[in-house]
Amino acid sequence: ARRGYPEAVLCEGKTMEHLVAIARAVGERGSTNGHQPLGTILFTRASATQAEAVCRELPDAVHDPVARIIAWPGPVPEPSGGTVLVLCAGTADIPVAREALLTAQHLGRPAELVVDVGVAGLHRILARVDQIAAASAIVVVAGMDGALASVVAGLASAPVIGVPTSVGYGAALDGLAPLLSMLNACAPGVAVVNIDNGYGAGHLAAQIAAGG
Amino acid sequence: ARRGYPEAVLCEGKTMEHLVAIARAVGERGSTNGHQPLGTILFTRASATQAEAVCRELPDAVHDPVARIIAWPGPVPEPSGGTVLVLCAGTADIPVAREALLTAQHLGRPAELVVDVGVAGLHRILARVDQIAAASAIVVVAGMDGALASVVAGLASAPVIGVPTSVGYGAALDGLAPLLSMLNACAPGVAVVNIDNGYGAGHLAAQIAAGG
Amino acid sequence: ARRGYPEAVLCEGKTMEHLVAIARAVGERGSTNGHQPLGTILFTRASATQAEAVCRELPDAVHDPVARIIAWPGPVPEPSGGTVLVLCAGTADIPVAREALLTAQHLGRPAELVVDVGVAGLHRILARVDQIAAASAIVVVAGMDGALASVVAGLASAPVIGVPTSVGYGAALDGLAPLLSMLNACAPGVAVVNIDNGYGAGHLAAQIAAGG
Amino acid sequence: ARRGYPEAVLCEGKTMEHLVAIARAVGERGSTNGHQPLGTILFTRASATQAEAVCRELPDAVHDPVARIIAWPGPVPEPSGGTVLVLCAGTADIPVAREALLTAQHLGRPAELVVDVGVAGLHRILARVDQIAAASAIVVVAGMDGALASVVAGLASAPVIGVPTSVGYGAALDGLAPLLSMLNACAPGVAVVNIDNGYGAGHLAAQIAAGG
Amino acid sequence: ARRGYPEAVLCEGKTMEHLVAIARAVGERGSTNGHQPLGTILFTRASATQAEAVCRELPDAVHDPVARIIAWPGPVPEPSGGTVLVLCAGTADIPVAREALLTAQHLGRPAELVVDVGVAGLHRILARVDQIAAASAIVVVAGMDGALASVVAGLASAPVIGVPTSVGYGAALDGLAPLLSMLNACAPGVAVVNIDNGYGAGHLAAQIAAGG
Amino acid sequence: ARRGYPEAVLCEGKTMEHLVAIARAVGERGSTNGHQPLGTILFTRASATQAEAVCRELPDAVHDPVARIIAWPGPVPEPSGGTVLVLCAGTADIPVAREALLTAQHLGRPAELVVDVGVAGLHRILARVDQIAAASAIVVVAGMDGALASVVAGLASAPVIGVPTSVGYGAALDGLAPLLSMLNACAPGVAVVNIDNGYGAGHLAAQIAAGG
Amino acid sequence: ARRGYPEAVLCEGKTMEHLVAIARAVGERGSTNGHQPLGTILFTRASATQAEAVCRELPDAVHDPVARIIAWPGPVPEPSGGTVLVLCAGTADIPVAREALLTAQHLGRPAELVVDVGVAGLHRILARVDQIAAASAIVVVAGMDGALASVVAGLASAPVIGVPTSVGYGAALDGLAPLLSMLNACAPGVAVVNIDNGYGAGHLAAQIAAGG
Amino acid sequence: ARRGYPEAVLCEGKTMEHLVAIARAVGERGSTNGHQPLGTILFTRASATQAEAVCRELPDAVHDPVARIIAWPGPVPEPSGGTVLVLCAGTADIPVAREALLTAQHLGRPAELVVDVGVAGLHRILARVDQIAAASAIVVVAGMDGALASVVAGLASAPVIGVPTSVGYGAALDGLAPLLSMLNACAPGVAVVNIDNGYGAGHLAAQIAAGG
Ligand SMILES: Nc1ncnc2c1ncn2[C@@H]1O[C@H](COP(=O)(O)O)[C@@H](O)[C@H]1O
Ligand SMILES: Nc1ncnc2c1ncn2[C@@H]1O[C@H](COP(=O)(O)O)[C@@H](O)[C@H]1O
Ligand SMILES: Nc1ncnc2c1ncn2[C@@H]1O[C@H](COP(=O)(O)O)[C@@H](O)[C@H]1O
Ligand SMILES: Nc1ncnc2c1ncn2[C@@H]1O[C@H](COP(=O)(O)O)[C@@H](O)[C@H]1O
Ligand SMILES: [Mg+2]
Ligand SMILES: [Mg+2]
Ligand SMILES: [Mg+2]
Ligand SMILES: [Mg+2]
Ligand SMILES: [Mg+2]
Ligand SMILES: [Mg+2]
Ligand SMILES: [Mg+2]
Ligand SMILES: [Mg+2]
Repeated sequence: ARRGYPEAVLCEGKTMEHLVAIARAVGERGSTNGHQPLGTILFTRASATQAEAVCRELPDAVHDPVARIIAWPGPVPEPSGGTVLVLCAGTADIPVAREALLTAQHLGRPAELVVDVGVAGLHRILARVDQIAAASAIVVVAGMDGALASVVAGLASAPVIGVPTSVGYGAALDGLAPLLSMLNACAPGVAVVNIDNGYGAGHLAAQIAAGG
Repeated sequence: ARRGYPEAVLCEGKTMEHLVAIARAVGERGSTNGHQPLGTILFTRASATQAEAVCRELPDAVHDPVARIIAWPGPVPEPSGGTVLVLCAGTADIPVAREALLTAQHLGRPAELVVDVGVAGLHRILARVDQIAAASAIVVVAGMDGALASVVAGLASAPVIGVPTSVGYGAALDGLAPLLSMLNACAPGVAVVNIDNGYGAGHLAAQIAAGG
Repeated sequence: ARRGYPEAVLCEGKTMEHLVAIARAVGERGSTNGHQPLGTILFTRASATQAEAVCRELPDAVHDPVARIIAWPGPVPEPSGGTVLVLCAGTADIPVAREALLTAQHLGRPAELVVDVGVAGLHRILARVDQIAAASAIVVVAGMDGALASVVAGLASAPVIGVPTSVGYGAALDGLAPLLSMLNACAPGVAVVNIDNGYGAGHLAAQIAAGG
Repeated sequence: ARRGYPEAVLCEGKTMEHLVAIARAVGERGSTNGHQPLGTILFTRASATQAEAVCRELPDAVHDPVARIIAWPGPVPEPSGGTVLVLCAGTADIPVAREALLTAQHLGRPAELVVDVGVAGLHRILARVDQIAAASAIVVVAGMDGALASVVAGLASAPVIGVPTSVGYGAALDGLAPLLSMLNACAPGVAVVNIDNGYGAGHLAAQIAAGG
Repeated sequence: ARRGYPEAVLCEGKTMEHLVAIARAVGERGSTNGHQPLGTILFTRASATQAEAVCRELPDAVHDPVARIIAWPGPVPEPSGGTVLVLCAGTADIPVAREALLTAQHLGRPAELVVDVGVAGLHRILARVDQIAAASAIVVVAGMDGALASVVAGLASAPVIGVPTSVGYGAALDGLAPLLSMLNACAPGVAVVNIDNGYGAGHLAAQIAAGG
Repeated sequence: ARRGYPEAVLCEGKTMEHLVAIARAVGERGSTNGHQPLGTILFTRASATQAEAVCRELPDAVHDPVARIIAWPGPVPEPSGGTVLVLCAGTADIPVAREALLTAQHLGRPAELVVDVGVAGLHRILARVDQIAAASAIVVVAGMDGALASVVAGLASAPVIGVPTSVGYGAALDGLAPLLSMLNACAPGVAVVNIDNGYGAGHLAAQIAAGG
Repeated sequence: ARRGYPEAVLCEGKTMEHLVAIARAVGERGSTNGHQPLGTILFTRASATQAEAVCRELPDAVHDPVARIIAWPGPVPEPSGGTVLVLCAGTADIPVAREALLTAQHLGRPAELVVDVGVAGLHRILARVDQIAAASAIVVVAGMDGALASVVAGLASAPVIGVPTSVGYGAALDGLAPLLSMLNACAPGVAVVNIDNGYGAGHLAAQIAAGG
Repeated sequence: ARRGYPEAVLCEGKTMEHLVAIARAVGERGSTNGHQPLGTILFTRASATQAEAVCRELPDAVHDPVARIIAWPGPVPEPSGGTVLVLCAGTADIPVAREALLTAQHLGRPAELVVDVGVAGLHRILARVDQIAAASAIVVVAGMDGALASVVAGLASAPVIGVPTSVGYGAALDGLAPLLSMLNACAPGVAVVNIDNGYGAGHLAAQIAAGG
């Protein structure tokens, strides 16, 4: 585990042979070095076929097919530090949001997910101001106009991590539109990760919230 | 006046000689055909030097240096139809917003301008819900994240015309970021004009509000 | 129904489970609140498989496979307000044009669709000047060069909503070419929605034509 | 003169020293090889300062400051072959249109320029159908939506060369919008040259019209 | 037949129903108006399935599966006018080159195809200088660097139509690289059509070569 | 002061009149509400002329011409919380790095700046591992390849905020190259702000380090 | 064999018929001209189906399915010249890295492949400094941030050829992000080939290392 | 001197103060460490004003205003290794070509510059085949279509470094067109550096030619 955090294996783009070899090596190394736990390994962006192959090597791994994450060993650690709040604009953004949520939990933070709070109906996000005020780090997951990041940053004093998603079509340009929008958030306190990168956002939010 | 609306001359990109020739021809034609007024001519996106040259040919023209518009004959017509509301996210968007405002007024609509209602402080736009409800057409002028268009469309039942501006830097990409953001507005009822095209937005808003 | 208009659910990008859950909730809520109708729900950009699943939950819904729209309850309301005219450059643009048409009708407007009036044969659009003059709002659907929007705006006094389509190949760039072309329409009175966004155009046209 | 046509020197981007050296060499070589004329040299896209320096070396050269072309020796040859027709959408496109016109004339063709026939007012181009029918090659110069190329190609049986211009702002993207639009012309018989490349279009049109 | 040339139907992007309806209408109209032939109809960019459906409606049509063209009535007319020469950089460019060839032939020109003359081995194109000198119009089909267009234009006095292709990968950007390269050809006398647009190039070349 | 942090005024893009009016209003409001300090106001991205005008209205403001920041009231608050470490790849990145440094200090954090630690000479950044380990939040400022962000994230357990800069030329694309590079950082724990946005990075780092 | 090096056939994009014809011609020509070997032919970027077809024509060819290369005649020549070192950031980059390795070997160089030395864990590349110092030419294969190229160039005195890969997602833009990053490498001594072009990099590295 | 080669300071983008401080430090360090020369320092992309300031600190430095390079100490070392050949398409590319030439010479190679050998007149480059055959490394400098790189790579067995330049206008996109073209060179043996990066190309060519 580099720098004290769980390792992650990006499944997408790997051949089946390479992926299986990695999973096997993980299993052979075991989850402790004898004395101490070595930390969870996350397999991210796993297709159904890839997930099946990984779980064949690591039968006690836990697979979340919506988030496309496999964790080994499966159980999340006892939460510590401040709360990570994941806010999600629309239903189609849920897979990415859930990837952020599970990552933050596997890194040891208490974490909550709130869905369907896009800015087209402002009352939905305004109903969450207390939850926003209580969070130590906030992940905002949104596609299309990406406007939720700016609105939340205007309401929060905690750092906001924006995750643009590839949800949408046409001029959404596979997520470039919300990426650019979030990079230009008119409220300060927002930084952005790659399109659909729920893993990266969850990791960073967990680091930020580590101190509580 | 094509289709019953004032004509406009886009000054930007024209040589001084061509522009002066156009202004002279306008003056020689006069503002009526003997019986009826021919309607206002708008000179748009005029530099200071261009404005001076146009006003030398048309001395009774009215020049607004912030909006970079020259109108001849100068006075706006008696307003009729529904109200055009121009909402402007930040101070730097004022020139474009004012171009929309003046265009709508010269096309005969009652029109109002509200500035500094960007989404970083939601209370500012929420304080305007009555004004939004009363408008027949709304123009939203915003740069950077362009998020104001989505938020207003969620609050309004009138049509919203988004005008992305070139305000911002870096990944604002000279207005491409808010252009893409507004094209992907997560609330329906938004259409978009060219970056910084206050003239086009004011014209369209006036057409929409014509019936009241 | 937000702001007095029917709600819409964008099917594309949603998992089957989430979509079915939404359809079920719609059915359970019913189409009236006891006293008043709650308005139509539109499911847009539905694949064949998605449409089948939605219709299983809402058996009396009406599915238009060309427009990829499902409406529940199915029948369009009695038309009121001005006419929405949908003009379509080529045969391949029909699905998007039909999406605009049906949306405008479900929002309560009388609406007409004219196909195959691209500018390569000007006589086709020139034969429609009376129909253009009679419309309260015009939707222009075109891919490739997007030139029809400029030509129609030069002929019409009603507002024009341009819908660029992803029809074409190569430098059409999946609809970016007509999007840019329409944003730069040399006639005023044009605003643009996202590529292939017939729903958004139909919605906005219905709002514009509401007053007649 | 390569392949029987005049040579051209692109002034833009050259240092003053290199440009003067080229002009001097041209003058020293002379305009005939004793028996036959060597053909005209065109200096294109010359700034005012560059033009002055070239004319100092070649005092009998003819400079057109609008087209930014210098020709040496100055007089155009006796015209032969078919007519080149240059059509120009707006006043701001005139410099590029004139560059095409002069190039075609220096390559020996009879050539005509018609300005301000943009598609926003279709009657203007429809008034030119006889002139269009009589031409052997047509150059269409237009910025913004570039729609004139498609419309003209629909009316003409002669080949159409489109020249997108950098006229416009915002989403015109310095001429990329009309470039893409013209590449996607919905009428066949259009090919396109570089943005603002009046020289290239005039050259190609003269080649096409050579046979009459 | 518009403007005296065969009509073409772009199959790509059309639904099967719309395409079959068009083919049926073509068949019902017949190939003459009683006295005169109405000219060939070309169906372009037809998938295998689409081609089969069209040929079921028009059984005597001729289908070229490499060029993806179906012609009805099938036989090419007696050639007249000058020769169209199609030059093709690599083997993978053949389908587009053949589309240009067949189009030019169906428009009535004698036409020739030369393949595998890319600039990586200059002797291949240098062996063709006589053929190049004899042509009235030249179509250059190339992907990747698109360099063949510049090289051929430097050798030819006839007009050159460049057709960039989507052959290549990575920074070829689906044909944008050769498109940009050809638009910037350092030899004059080149104009460009859309990526993979063999039809458009063949059409334009046939128009150019019409006079011989 | 929104959400407990100093306000900032983005000078770039504002007219001189609007900027002076804002500065005057700030001065008239004063720096306390009688009982409590209202917090510092930062004027960012101020040109020399703008800075002069602001300081004329607010004579006791402090201007840093390299960072282009003006602070009023000038003195930085007593530092509290964890340390913000600003790492800067090259000399040309110093202005943006300094903007981050001063912003963090004005938000109340102890902050340090280390320059010229680009990855071309790895020993430079490897000499800083202790300083990296001691920081609560790290800002990495780099142009061109933006590689420093990935390298630092691999060495640090604190969150890393990447600031791509517009330093470089050609394919640096005014900062898009390092922006994309940092968004794709191969080490987790990196989020990115807009190109050249030292202010945004300093603000976010100060929020992250608030808890120590 | 052009210029003394093996020929290559790019399989991708070729029809099966054309590819089989090429393979057959290669087989019929044979591998010597009677006296001397004609050199190896490489078939690159071959799909599984294409590889099968080529091997049917050339049964003694050697196919590497990971690198997607088929070599005929199969055996690599006796190595001569300096060593080519291929460094590969991640597991998903292995196919491209292997394509470079095999190409260099078939061109006659001793070549080595080192995988999983991305900059997120600097110790991995720092453990290779001796191998880097011993190489005559270095190929760096990396996707996402492409940072490995800059880091290696800072450590090496041999030339570095960067191969950006399409590994990654979202803002990796199918390899454009590492392409731009490598073009902007902050250490000199790096040049770049097309995205995923292991063949080109291996070829160039073999040319560089030819002299030892 | 890192890795045995001269250091370079990129002047562009540095403040005058920072640049002067660097020049002063260079002068104070001296050109030897007592026993051995420390190697030349190159100041690249220096404006006229910057060059003057650097030369004031280092009076015996040598400034080449065309290449925008300042070398200190000035004299080039005795040449060793193979020849670097710099080929330049057009006159406007000379500054970049000269930057490559001088860099290679300061790194100790014999180097030659050949100008005006663009592919529009193939005889010019064909006249250089012997010089091409004699070179150990070739730098090709070209803007617009960048076609010279492919043509030269087809003629040479030495490695080719392509330098795209920002020469051209419109769709040349400030050098992106030749950059993409060169990345897609249809002949192997080409790698590319940043737009206008003569320094990088000269450095790499000198490394390649080091062995002779
Ligand atoms: N600021 C503007 N932005 C966009 N289009 C404009 C603007 N001002 C005028 N136009 C339009 O541009 C056309 C005038 O072009 P021109 O004939 O070149 O003056 C008219 O059709 C106007 O409607
Ligand atoms: N240098 C900067 N970069 C990005 N945003 C800034 C900068 N300076 C101020 N801001 C933000 O821009 C907004 C101020 O905009 P305005 O009201 O136009 O002055 C505030 O919300 C600031 O947080
Ligand atoms: N994988 C590859 N990537 C880039 N170029 C290649 C590749 N394989 C072969 N080539 C080049 O492409 C040309 C072959 O094109 P073709 O004649 O169509 O097979 C040759 O000049 C090869 O050098
Ligand atoms: N003209 C240039 N183009 C690209 N990189 C350069 C140039 N001149 C110097 N460099 C590199 O930029 C770095 C110098 O950056 P700096 O420390 O900011 O002067 C060194 O690693 C040089 O190798
Ligand atoms: Mg919703
Ligand atoms: Mg404000
Ligand atoms: Mg049609
Ligand atoms: Mg006009
Ligand atoms: Mg070949
Ligand atoms: Mg340095
Ligand atoms: Mg790894
Ligand atoms: Mg020349």
